[in-house]
Amino acid sequence: MVSQVVAEEKPQLLSKKAGCNSHGQDSSYFLGWQEYEKNPFDPVSNPSGIIQMGLAENQLSFDLLEEWLEKNPHALGLRREGGGASVFRELALFQDYHGLPAFKNALARFMSEQRGYKVVFDPSNIVLTAGATSANEALMFCLADHGDAFLIPTPYYPGFDRDLKWRTGAEIVPVHCASANGFRVTRAALDDAYRRAQKRRLRVKGVLITNPSNPLGTSSPRADLEAIVDFVAAKGIHLISDEIYAGTAFAEPGFVSALEVVAGRDGGGADVSDRVHVVYSLSKDLGLPGFRVGAIYSANAAVVSAATKMSSFGLVSSQTQYLLAALLGDRDFTRSYVAENKRRIKERHDQLVDGLREIGIGCLPSNAGLFCWVDMSHLMRSRSFAGEMELWKKVVFEVGLNISPGSSCHCREPGWFRVCFANMSAKTLDVAMQRLRSFVDSATGGGDNAALRRAAAPVRSVSCPLAIKWALRLTPSIADRKAER
Amino acid sequence: MVSQVVAEEKPQLLSKKAGCNSHGQDSSYFLGWQEYEKNPFDPVSNPSGIIQMGLAENQLSFDLLEEWLEKNPHALGLRREGGGASVFRELALFQDYHGLPAFKNALARFMSEQRGYKVVFDPSNIVLTAGATSANEALMFCLADHGDAFLIPTPYYPGFDRDLKWRTGAEIVPVHCASANGFRVTRAALDDAYRRAQKRRLRVKGVLITNPSNPLGTSSPRADLEAIVDFVAAKGIHLISDEIYAGTAFAEPGFVSALEVVAGRDGGGADVSDRVHVVYSLSKDLGLPGFRVGAIYSANAAVVSAATKMSSFGLVSSQTQYLLAALLGDRDFTRSYVAENKRRIKERHDQLVDGLREIGIGCLPSNAGLFCWVDMSHLMRSRSFAGEMELWKKVVFEVGLNISPGSSCHCREPGWFRVCFANMSAKTLDVAMQRLRSFVDSATGGGDNAALRRAAAPVRSVSCPLAIKWALRLTPSIADRKAER
Repeated sequence: MVSQVVAEEKPQLLSKKAGCNSHGQDSSYFLGWQEYEKNPFDPVSNPSGIIQMGLAENQLSFDLLEEWLEKNPHALGLRREGGGASVFRELALFQDYHGLPAFKNALARFMSEQRGYKVVFDPSNIVLTAGATSANEALMFCLADHGDAFLIPTPYYPGFDRDLKWRTGAEIVPVHCASANGFRVTRAALDDAYRRAQKRRLRVKGVLITNPSNPLGTSSPRADLEAIVDFVAAKGIHLISDEIYAGTAFAEPGFVSALEVVAGRDGGGADVSDRVHVVYSLSKDLGLPGFRVGAIYSANAAVVSAATKMSSFGLVSSQTQYLLAALLGDRDFTRSYVAENKRRIKERHDQLVDGLREIGIGCLPSNAGLFCWVDMSHLMRSRSFAGEMELWKKVVFEVGLNISPGSSCHCREPGWFRVCFANMSAKTLDVAMQRLRSFVDSATGGGDNAALRRAAAPVRSVSCPLAIKWALRLTPSIADRKAER
Repeated sequence: MVSQVVAEEKPQLLSKKAGCNSHGQDSSYFLGWQEYEKNPFDPVSNPSGIIQMGLAENQLSFDLLEEWLEKNPHALGLRREGGGASVFRELALFQDYHGLPAFKNALARFMSEQRGYKVVFDPSNIVLTAGATSANEALMFCLADHGDAFLIPTPYYPGFDRDLKWRTGAEIVPVHCASANGFRVTRAALDDAYRRAQKRRLRVKGVLITNPSNPLGTSSPRADLEAIVDFVAAKGIHLISDEIYAGTAFAEPGFVSALEVVAGRDGGGADVSDRVHVVYSLSKDLGLPGFRVGAIYSANAAVVSAATKMSSFGLVSSQTQYLLAALLGDRDFTRSYVAENKRRIKERHDQLVDGLREIGIGCLPSNAGLFCWVDMSHLMRSRSFAGEMELWKKVVFEVGLNISPGSSCHCREPGWFRVCFANMSAKTLDVAMQRLRSFVDSATGGGDNAALRRAAAPVRSVSCPLAIKWALRLTPSIADRKAER
């Protein structure tokens, strides 16, 4: 019988990709979301639910966007400014790979503004994509063949294993960074990663960084960027700089784009300019992940050409392009939005950092992003990844906070967690801090956290073994509902 | 010097994909667009420009959509029905892979309606994608590994070489169809293609059809679908049925979905139900290619799961999902829209077919699509693909009509052209017919086309050698601005 043969053959019937695990979504990063979704916190209807601190959403400045929309109804209504004619037909048909010129011009200017006009973006070098997820994958398809490798500093965004490797067949070789120097990228670490790649007989095609870093919440210091650019220049490879958090840099030393460093190189600057590619998105800086707007910026004509063709697999809705062309085209608005948004991010960041310090938990000093990189190693029963997972489960199930363990970000040192702060109200963040305080109190056997507070030094605090009992287990299934980063 | 080494290495620095030609966009299909864009027809400002008949856009029913939008301002305004609260914040953050439930429900119902409720679509089996381009590629990633093959009946949509092969590494093996039986797919042709694939040591993973067919403009007869389903059942392979023109079937025998055939199979029906996957889109039936809305429908849980994860590379803007949830959720509207849209397509189709018949040009009898498959072989100087290209250039440059030559669709018989009719006004179509009449008149040396008119039989007309002089040459560069099909 055909049917029986088919039934037996089934597992081979799909591609290897469809069945394999390199999408990386079984990690605790995604599992935490699953738990959150089963029991989401709500101050009124579910005050004992899990608070989502694993989601790098920016919910702080929607009122500013809404106010603008109220004043500019033509943008949503798909009409010309001042209540003019409908552009619905035009937009319904508009599927040019190159994007709506008005939107690309406005986006280029916005990206220049985010970088204080130290870099000026040329709209013709922009390729629009349905989010940064798509941008990163398209760049990987352009730059790496199956089995080629990119070096990525750790800790890195857990989704990269899916975005960069899954369909492209490219490999990621971690550049190991450590708390000793605040997880900064060094030439020695890059050289070490390069050597490890060579040992694995992988051809290294480039380095990929997130700047500002996800999950660290720090912008790359200029000196570090210079070292990275020198490295890619010396090796004759590419640099992808994922700068989707560019507009979140709320404090000194501020954000420096990789392109700024390339432009400022003496003499040899031109040599790498067509090998440095920037990824951008409006998901974080504007808080619009649902609208799926990402971009690749490259001065390499061959990359722009290939990526433009690839963008047919993930174009941005023309309806959304039209709205955002109007929004980003309003310079007065973008200027005040960016400033106010940063101010609010800083305020929320400070609330988290201060709250953690009060209960003896330290963070990596940070100046950007929608999260902090939090050191809870002193709360682990053992200084190991098993200890980290044990603590993480406790925090999710007992404390009721979904945070992301460092191991899911390929961090080599156990005990670090990414904790998001911009996807909730200040009140909810207070509840989270209260819960964590109770947890620390009970774990340390009393209300006196003076020692812990003293230990909450700028970079790393003292370890403090705990006796924690486990009653609950995680179901090892996939909780992937989001394209979130 | 590093810079010199780099300059020399440049060609190897990108991936093979970035440099290779398997995106297929250097074909005459795309080159015709380039010429059109240089000199586009406009009845007032450029009446001698090229008329675009290479673009399968549906511009016939925008007034119906606009009328609906006028009555339902909440849909564009991102408010709850009846001028209620704004859902902007909710949508700005909404990036769930699984799509807005309201939109998926409405889409599932609309798809069921398109198929006369003979198939009922389950929203949980739908994966949303940024257009059908993305849907087809994602399915290929799910079903085929590098070097695996899909069999596709010819003539087929030129973009498939890009969509299905370029990034996935999958191969297309043509199933040769011929004018002798109206280009219908036969078991013998399928078997022949399968054997050729085996000779090339390719593993055949499935068959992909477009139904209604692009470029033929015909819906698959039930018997043909049954033969195809029997074939995939016997071989233990997949069937992808691209049904993006489902709603254009304006005449008998009407549209039959592959899923209807699968559901109706005796006994063994269950054996193939998880190997038949449908691709859909709102680009053609609703005329909204700019909004980038596509979908995969599959009863195979593993495919739905993998494709859902892959959809993160091309999600649909939540703003657009919201609008379309409201539009497609209005049953009275969709019912009257679909009927009126079909009526208009038929009217325009008839105008083209009648006009061509008048000047002695025959078409494959068709009942769907936004184009006809037109036989101009009698106007070629030689019955060869060189003759086809010669004629095509004449039509583009001298007659001023951008049509798509059959060779770009991998048709094996020279002399066929895809001619689109729904992306222009009736008046412009008249101008196109007048131009073609003058061309045929001058080519046949007089105004008497009686013989040609008689020859314009239903399927294939008589060949008529012509003396055509060439003064112009095409620039062989890429004219890819569209994700169009």
